[in-house]
Amino acid sequence: MLEKTKKVFRIRNIAIRQMLAEALGTFIVMVFGLSSVAQVVLGKGNSGQYLSINIAFGIGVTLGIYAAGRISGAHLNAAITITQCILGTISWTTAIAYIIGQFLGSFMAAATVFALYYDAIYAYSNGNLTVSGPNATAMIFSTYPAPNVSLQGAFFTEFTATVMLILGVLVIHDEKNNAAIKGAQPVLTGLLVLGIGLGMGLNTGYAINPSRDLPPRIFMAIAGWGMAVFTGDHSWWWVPVTAPVLGSLFGVFLYKLCIDFHNQPSHETELEKEQAGMETSRL
Amino acid sequence: MLEKTKKVFRIRNIAIRQMLAEALGTFIVMVFGLSSVAQVVLGKGNSGQYLSINIAFGIGVTLGIYAAGRISGAHLNAAITITQCILGTISWTTAIAYIIGQFLGSFMAAATVFALYYDAIYAYSNGNLTVSGPNATAMIFSTYPAPNVSLQGAFFTEFTATVMLILGVLVIHDEKNNAAIKGAQPVLTGLLVLGIGLGMGLNTGYAINPSRDLPPRIFMAIAGWGMAVFTGDHSWWWVPVTAPVLGSLFGVFLYKLCIDFHNQPSHETELEKEQAGMETSRL
Amino acid sequence: MLEKTKKVFRIRNIAIRQMLAEALGTFIVMVFGLSSVAQVVLGKGNSGQYLSINIAFGIGVTLGIYAAGRISGAHLNAAITITQCILGTISWTTAIAYIIGQFLGSFMAAATVFALYYDAIYAYSNGNLTVSGPNATAMIFSTYPAPNVSLQGAFFTEFTATVMLILGVLVIHDEKNNAAIKGAQPVLTGLLVLGIGLGMGLNTGYAINPSRDLPPRIFMAIAGWGMAVFTGDHSWWWVPVTAPVLGSLFGVFLYKLCIDFHNQPSHETELEKEQAGMETSRL
Amino acid sequence: MLEKTKKVFRIRNIAIRQMLAEALGTFIVMVFGLSSVAQVVLGKGNSGQYLSINIAFGIGVTLGIYAAGRISGAHLNAAITITQCILGTISWTTAIAYIIGQFLGSFMAAATVFALYYDAIYAYSNGNLTVSGPNATAMIFSTYPAPNVSLQGAFFTEFTATVMLILGVLVIHDEKNNAAIKGAQPVLTGLLVLGIGLGMGLNTGYAINPSRDLPPRIFMAIAGWGMAVFTGDHSWWWVPVTAPVLGSLFGVFLYKLCIDFHNQPSHETELEKEQAGMETSRL
Repeated sequence: MLEKTKKVFRIRNIAIRQMLAEALGTFIVMVFGLSSVAQVVLGKGNSGQYLSINIAFGIGVTLGIYAAGRISGAHLNAAITITQCILGTISWTTAIAYIIGQFLGSFMAAATVFALYYDAIYAYSNGNLTVSGPNATAMIFSTYPAPNVSLQGAFFTEFTATVMLILGVLVIHDEKNNAAIKGAQPVLTGLLVLGIGLGMGLNTGYAINPSRDLPPRIFMAIAGWGMAVFTGDHSWWWVPVTAPVLGSLFGVFLYKLCIDFHNQPSHETELEKEQAGMETSRL
Repeated sequence: MLEKTKKVFRIRNIAIRQMLAEALGTFIVMVFGLSSVAQVVLGKGNSGQYLSINIAFGIGVTLGIYAAGRISGAHLNAAITITQCILGTISWTTAIAYIIGQFLGSFMAAATVFALYYDAIYAYSNGNLTVSGPNATAMIFSTYPAPNVSLQGAFFTEFTATVMLILGVLVIHDEKNNAAIKGAQPVLTGLLVLGIGLGMGLNTGYAINPSRDLPPRIFMAIAGWGMAVFTGDHSWWWVPVTAPVLGSLFGVFLYKLCIDFHNQPSHETELEKEQAGMETSRL
Repeated sequence: MLEKTKKVFRIRNIAIRQMLAEALGTFIVMVFGLSSVAQVVLGKGNSGQYLSINIAFGIGVTLGIYAAGRISGAHLNAAITITQCILGTISWTTAIAYIIGQFLGSFMAAATVFALYYDAIYAYSNGNLTVSGPNATAMIFSTYPAPNVSLQGAFFTEFTATVMLILGVLVIHDEKNNAAIKGAQPVLTGLLVLGIGLGMGLNTGYAINPSRDLPPRIFMAIAGWGMAVFTGDHSWWWVPVTAPVLGSLFGVFLYKLCIDFHNQPSHETELEKEQAGMETSRL
Repeated sequence: MLEKTKKVFRIRNIAIRQMLAEALGTFIVMVFGLSSVAQVVLGKGNSGQYLSINIAFGIGVTLGIYAAGRISGAHLNAAITITQCILGTISWTTAIAYIIGQFLGSFMAAATVFALYYDAIYAYSNGNLTVSGPNATAMIFSTYPAPNVSLQGAFFTEFTATVMLILGVLVIHDEKNNAAIKGAQPVLTGLLVLGIGLGMGLNTGYAINPSRDLPPRIFMAIAGWGMAVFTGDHSWWWVPVTAPVLGSLFGVFLYKLCIDFHNQPSHETELEKEQAGMETSRL
């Protein structure tokens, strides 16, 4: 039975396969992540606390990378995709396929978690889907800044948290330096994301990834929260879309400045760069 | 001394050996899991919180897979066994042996945890074993839906959580794609189950496995809770028996659609399928 | 400088080296474990909760096994040593050397943690070192049963928790079956101990090891708590000394019955048993 | 573009490269660690608890070692650097380069976390940066002893916690004994630091590292807290600078006495010592 289905569905086009891999990987990250936020918020702290969310996003990232790693390199983050595109390691067409896949997966994950917790969200909010107030539920799906944080502070937080993300990703995957065991790299990237949540989540909820934040926000706008998800908190929505891209670029530069530039003769790099393709480890 | 005992007890029949392996593996999963629920409930939150339960089930799954992995492939879950049977990777007779083993192990684990916490259960419930009310203890052994969740919502939750379980299992074990290091796969499967508990446990307690839920329920019916364990919550008991099977099948299909169908030429798959036997990684 | 010191201190006698390795390994386990109990009790829950203790004992066990593993096999538990002695895999003289080492390490760890938290223990107890009452501090060093647990219940708990410990240890280390990667086995044994604490700690505090419980109790009797540490809770002290030994033996039998007896022809076992020596994996 | 930048920035001098590696590694440790303290303090327990801090420092250490490990051996701790210098495995000039790097990274991390949480620190403290009192914020950056701990008690705690740190580091890395898998050693060192925080943090906040404690204190003195950061708690600041060095030396001696001296013939050690260079595993 599966053999017949296979013949019907089999795709040979690499860009579509990469798009599907990014979609599935991001879907996995986001179902684990968003559902844990839902469980903490809707369970009112009896079924998990902030730490649970940090751990769940870490586990989601680990599994998402195992899913997509060999096919697309498992960016699962438009900031990383755009960075690689700017640095010339992937083409603009590939980048677009990746981002479409990530947004698709993230959007589907938001829809899945909404369906999963439909009853509980309605019980919690009395059927009134709001962005702020005591029964607000928008923070289940997308990030919002803490009350006493300025826009510059929020931007700097997303920027810095993404710098740390990229530093960590490079540190874990840099085969020229001190990379982790290949099969364990996704676990370490999960630990990295856990670490960011433990320390850099208070101000903005550590989006650090446009693909994590924007598609669920679009889903909410459609599903009943309305345009308030975009206008809320002084139209904050563009910060987790732009700051991570800048943070990602700066993180690459910082790593190269401290470690990579000095690690081997130029001509070798020249050759290896050609082979590097779209691997995260060769930003 | 052990050599003599060995000659008496040694079993060469592979089906019985697999049944025993599934029994021991499921026993390990369930003793760690159920005892952690008992410790949180009976300790009234002073000896662990919801997170402890999530971690304990993860550790139990990890150890259970190390126990049974080489002999039976460590399904430890009737939904996975039935899925493999439907997909034709194991025979119906093997499937029955597996499920008998799983149910036996799970039932014995419930009995062990009941004996372990006999004193504490009686102190907590004043000797009155009930399914609901302030001193209810049935949720130590089997799952019950949260108050404000509809039957469809509960069914969809168990379905979706099992889809994520199967996606994760395939992602971790798929040698054709990006499998984790062989010796570390049980740890990752444990992390996967931890992740499900962190985000998909609020509605239904994440049974995601008929062998986790039904045998302890049968044990309770016998041990003093009575038939209320089946009739409670609108006869909810059949949901964690059926929804995981459907979720498991859908999870396999989703993974094949996004990743597996496109990963290699048909004729290779043909050959490998014959060798695959009962490995979880080749659902 | 170190070379000279080395010539003075170097020991070639294998029994003394094993004793030292067991001493250091057990010292590491116990300093991490006991200090975490102290931090939770004396910090009144602000510097850690029950979960912290579970994690700390797990980490201690992991590090203790890395310390002693290659020299003594890292029993770090008199129940395991006695079991191996009864099963004939180590001699009585070796067993005695091991147990002396374990007790020495455990006693020194209790003294170290007492010195570490001397100020805080005096502030917490107003200088009155007691076994029970609101300012009791004896549970920092040794285990005591929960109020509503009978002696039989406590004995059965220690027995069962040790059965699970031994099942887990065999599952992780059995090279004939599905052992974990060699270099990661100590981590998995740590996870196993964490799992036991998450679910089997409520009744008795999971001693599961005479070397964990008895030497700190002797230390307390000397250091100012008096003989009440032995007479308290109906002279409970002998339970964590004897129940783990029986549990360990039963665990070995259960594992062999379910898995090991059927895993390979007798004559191979015969040969391998001779080579097995004192490895934990061949109980 | 990066190729051109590379030619400009490339450094061939090994001491400067090691300094940069130590700087980046320590920066990573400290950003993860300090930001988690900030999140717990400023979030008033809603965005993490003491356990989060323990985990975050562990993750930071893991990532910091992956960053610097192959270039400098990843000391990231002046106590380890000074110990290796005293034992003769690195030269004084190398040691100075390492410590400059560590202090630079740690100082920059304090500045980064201050910028990250500038808004929240001002909201929390009403703009009044103090070392003690209800709105004190100095403990976000550097350690202070608990109220009822004497100076000797605090010194002994820092000493002992560093002894355990060094014992653990040697246990994990000693290739002559039972080292962990090479690629997983940074993870185990992270677990080790987590374990120290779980049990040995109550008295003094487990500095166990001059490079973790002193540079952020200097940063605070400049950034607005004033000289009170040094004079506070009876000029405690020198304890986490000196006690870890003594603890590190004693830890090396204890490990050699129990394990290393007996593990192999002198002449082999002689040879290997020459090759050992600056690796942490050969203190």
